Amino acid sequence: MRAVDIIHKKRNGGELTNDELSFLIKGYSQGEIPDYQMSAWAMAIYFRGMNAEETAYLTMAMAESGDQVDLSPIRGIKVDKHSTGGVGDKTSLVIGPLVASCGVPVAKMSGRGLGHTGGTIDKMQSMPGFRTELTREDFIAQVNDIGVAIIGQSGDMAPADKKLYALRDVTATVESIPLIASSVMSKKIAAGADAIVLDVKTGSGAFMKTLDDSEKLAMAMVEIGTKVGRRTAALISDMDQPLGFAIGNALEVREAIETLHGRGPADLTELCIALASHMVVLGGQAANLEEAENLLREKLRSGEALAKFKQFVAAQGGNPEVGDDPSLLPQAPVIVEVPAPKNGHVHAIQAEELGLAAMLLGAGREKTDSVIDYAVGITLQRKVGEPVREGETIALLHVREDNAAVQAVSKRVQDAYSIGTDELSPSPLLLSIVTESGIKRI
Amino acid sequence: MRAVDIIHKKRNGGELTNDELSFLIKGYSQGEIPDYQMSAWAMAIYFRGMNAEETAYLTMAMAESGDQVDLSPIRGIKVDKHSTGGVGDKTSLVIGPLVASCGVPVAKMSGRGLGHTGGTIDKMQSMPGFRTELTREDFIAQVNDIGVAIIGQSGDMAPADKKLYALRDVTATVESIPLIASSVMSKKIAAGADAIVLDVKTGSGAFMKTLDDSEKLAMAMVEIGTKVGRRTAALISDMDQPLGFAIGNALEVREAIETLHGRGPADLTELCIALASHMVVLGGQAANLEEAENLLREKLRSGEALAKFKQFVAAQGGNPEVGDDPSLLPQAPVIVEVPAPKNGHVHAIQAEELGLAAMLLGAGREKTDSVIDYAVGITLQRKVGEPVREGETIALLHVREDNAAVQAVSKRVQDAYSIGTDELSPSPLLLSIVTESGIKRI
Repeated sequence: MRAVDIIHKKRNGGELTNDELSFLIKGYSQGEIPDYQMSAWAMAIYFRGMNAEETAYLTMAMAESGDQVDLSPIRGIKVDKHSTGGVGDKTSLVIGPLVASCGVPVAKMSGRGLGHTGGTIDKMQSMPGFRTELTREDFIAQVNDIGVAIIGQSGDMAPADKKLYALRDVTATVESIPLIASSVMSKKIAAGADAIVLDVKTGSGAFMKTLDDSEKLAMAMVEIGTKVGRRTAALISDMDQPLGFAIGNALEVREAIETLHGRGPADLTELCIALASHMVVLGGQAANLEEAENLLREKLRSGEALAKFKQFVAAQGGNPEVGDDPSLLPQAPVIVEVPAPKNGHVHAIQAEELGLAAMLLGAGREKTDSVIDYAVGITLQRKVGEPVREGETIALLHVREDNAAVQAVSKRVQDAYSIGTDELSPSPLLLSIVTESGIKRI
Repeated sequence: MRAVDIIHKKRNGGELTNDELSFLIKGYSQGEIPDYQMSAWAMAIYFRGMNAEETAYLTMAMAESGDQVDLSPIRGIKVDKHSTGGVGDKTSLVIGPLVASCGVPVAKMSGRGLGHTGGTIDKMQSMPGFRTELTREDFIAQVNDIGVAIIGQSGDMAPADKKLYALRDVTATVESIPLIASSVMSKKIAAGADAIVLDVKTGSGAFMKTLDDSEKLAMAMVEIGTKVGRRTAALISDMDQPLGFAIGNALEVREAIETLHGRGPADLTELCIALASHMVVLGGQAANLEEAENLLREKLRSGEALAKFKQFVAAQGGNPEVGDDPSLLPQAPVIVEVPAPKNGHVHAIQAEELGLAAMLLGAGREKTDSVIDYAVGITLQRKVGEPVREGETIALLHVREDNAAVQAVSKRVQDAYSIGTDELSPSPLLLSIVTESGIKRI
């Protein structure tokens, strides 16, 4: 078998076999197939696509290229969640304890963030004492014990995906639905869950700009899951503004805690309930989405979800009191108000721009070795659809001191707001549900 | 400017600018742009193509990547000829002196061969004493003196093309008309001619399998030439069998000499006259193709073309007597007859297979450092359209000794002949003429 023949076959529109895709991925992982063949192959896939079978074969080859986590010692159906990325997305912090409080085991591995704000791991580390590194044994024991653990990715999971993604990034071959789908799913499959719920963002601030493309991506991932025996569902949600109000690590933890108290932002609460409902159904703890939703709302109302959060924080070395007293979290000493530049209504808030603004304040990493300031960030005072008057505060910057750099960020935040004269109702957050049975627009 | 953005633009169907293509080729030549970006770019071009402007820009960028020969010290319009490659193609040996005898200066640089039979340089070196390495000054002086010189490529001509071609070869990106056209033309332009005549082969044994594709390739090359101020014409000829009878270095020189005597194979003579006619017109020594053809036939008839050949051989250190006495060329001691396997008519002769057979006898290079045996090769006794009887000799192998390897080659030559029961007229050799004014089927 020769790589050039496989590239040629795909270039001419052929269907690649499991053997051919395994050969490519194995050879690439081992450094036997060079970058220049893989990039030509990726470009051929950009143009020719892959069918569901090929995509599943590629996914498994990448999942098998490194460590694969065995979660079988954990009782019950393990359901994982993945988001295609969003600014102000703290859903994992809410959903983990919430779903666990319904009896579905959550054994989650998360990544650190690069650019924008920190990842889930960074957010959790803003709680003093919280440990994100557990041994595989302690991780499993904790899930069996209290139903939830969230740790940093350890070991060498799906290294072929990592290598291929870095290559695609510099060869204009990122925007291929089968390649994106297999990249996401290879990591989730290597992480060992029995079922997977995907949070696919759509809109100008997201990777997929149109609902159609987002649905195609979601369907490609659901098909992979189905083919490899991991039940998968996807929710497509709008990203024409950040989720919730808070952007920045401790600020987001605080908002997650508010949400577990039942008084979080409406959009964040709605998305958490929707994603968690699918997890509870896939985890076998409710017969249908309606039943799951009722159960979840009851867990929030009764305080059981919050209690699970405190148990989870304590188990991983943090102070559980943070669940009742968020002032225990790091807080920035100075708050700078960002004024509205004119009268009108908020039409959109560029989430990516705000993520970048938060990073410039120190809440995210510009490089892999940048140090995050957990306290700093942005809290929005106005969201899409709300009226504003010139000079009124639309957002707060949480900073160490006010200076020229902070003022530049303030200007940037101002510019991220589109303020129009017309009244405007915010568009619905949840747009589609994609499962084995098809795509259902909401 | 970033390579990834240029790949992205082409991937999305954009038109690349001169600056962008120069940036890519310069960066690639200097090792600043890696192979993996160039292969992804080449695959994007495979799918998106390039228009005539882009193709011309790419060609010039590659031509300018290394040495460019300055032929301006040579008086007159210098016309070069290039063939897209054919088995048994000894046209350069005939055309060089023939065209020079009409007053068109021929200052030709040729390559060595790899695979199949040797290149023009190898063929010429089968004449004892013949030198193919001249200084630039001696080369120019010889053309000014006697009108013709053919030497090996010296210096570092179009190195970017060489590097890119090697990369395309292993990334399934060879078969792109704008990339093939720019590859051929970049070398011809760097070689310094004022006008170029192209011999484009078509058919099962050629690079371009259909007449349509061959015409597209020819047109792409003619358009490049026109855009960069080098008048260019292309002839498309059939390759359903080798050209002439002889395959192998000294055997082909002998056949070229026969042709200069006016008694060469009909197909070889016809193609040489056709190509040379275009060269004579482009070289300004005839007003039209008909006048050029009459002039060329007269030069053959009168012996002036042969005299020019002898003058050329002498000037480059060979024995001019070879022009009258081909037995001065190396000759293989043993001749093995290849019998027809059955009665019938020759329907086709796979040229590539015969090229390979000749290489196996020692007439071509398997690797760049293989040593060629000038004496060995194959002479065909039957060509397409001729009747054969079982056991009758269809070809002769010229070898050092008869042995098992030679018998295996004999079988291979037999298999290269398609012998059918029907009578069959050979298809016409010349199919199309492609010039600035368009494509004319013959």
